[in-house]
Amino acid sequence: MIPWKTIKKKLIHTQPPWLTVEQHEIELPGGRKIPDWPWIITPDYVNIVAQTRESDFLFFLQTKYGLEGESLALIGGFVEPGEMPRDAARRELLEETGYEASEWIDLGRYLVDPNRGIAHGNFFLALQAQKIVDPTADDLEEQQMIRLTLKEMKAAMDRGDFKVLAWAACVALALRNDRLSR
Amino acid sequence: MIPWKTIKKKLIHTQPPWLTVEQHEIELPGGRKIPDWPWIITPDYVNIVAQTRESDFLFFLQTKYGLEGESLALIGGFVEPGEMPRDAARRELLEETGYEASEWIDLGRYLVDPNRGIAHGNFFLALQAQKIVDPTADDLEEQQMIRLTLKEMKAAMDRGDFKVLAWAACVALALRNDRLSR
Repeated sequence: MIPWKTIKKKLIHTQPPWLTVEQHEIELPGGRKIPDWPWIITPDYVNIVAQTRESDFLFFLQTKYGLEGESLALIGGFVEPGEMPRDAARRELLEETGYEASEWIDLGRYLVDPNRGIAHGNFFLALQAQKIVDPTADDLEEQQMIRLTLKEMKAAMDRGDFKVLAWAACVALALRNDRLSR
Repeated sequence: MIPWKTIKKKLIHTQPPWLTVEQHEIELPGGRKIPDWPWIITPDYVNIVAQTRESDFLFFLQTKYGLEGESLALIGGFVEPGEMPRDAARRELLEETGYEASEWIDLGRYLVDPNRGIAHGNFFLALQAQKIVDPTADDLEEQQMIRLTLKEMKAAMDRGDFKVLAWAACVALALRNDRLSR
């Protein structure tokens, strides 16, 4: 299959590092042209399902500007420029919870918007996590740490308590991993 | 927890129905104001894991402008204005494959970007699907229908062959459903 060709890019709006909007002139395989395909540049992010040495899982109950009400939320955040996703995951786990994990399992890297976007979500399962410092996160949202057992995490997942696509995906991927599913 | 308050909205760019960008003036619970929080309005979408009466699952091998190379892809598309997500799912299944399913299971509705976006992904498992007409989809991308067994779908999932977040999430959610997991 032949990929679409980018002929030209026009900058519409930029607010780095959060959002850049472009319009692309695109040529389809048959020669048809689209003059103004919207293209959205937002940062990559990481989400982490972290299990402690005591076998419970670390989440937050929190608000988000885009959410109605509260949601069970995952540890995570944006990948800094030049940072590897796994380093971002370690950093976010430490900043948001004060925990460090001795074992990291990569759950995959997924494109968020296949039509118009460049951002990828990078997902991890962190095992044998233990608290080494106090959390230092400076996130703007109110959040409250919640500990769930494996059974409680599965029940929350199946009730739809993780209301954000990346959070539900990361938990579902973690639950498919041998380390939690066996 | 107190939600953030929207004080003012400023229109930055609009290209309906695909993309509208706004800047919101926001007041945080402590009184701090953010003058220019980026806000992205894109349409809701549906994705469907469809199992035929012959027990195989329907996917596509296809390209997307945002993807490098090909990906295993799900049936799906945008929800039309005023349309219910389940109706959009039935319509997309019929348009893209010519199949109709007698049993529909709701796998949930998830917010795509909790910080800056309004779009929700709506996921379904369609069972007992049978072909009733020829597909009529007018999607711009090249796509080729692929049939997978349950075992092949699980293997493709675990290899990362569904490269888009919503597609991997929808398959992972379908695999957690009693109808496929037992």
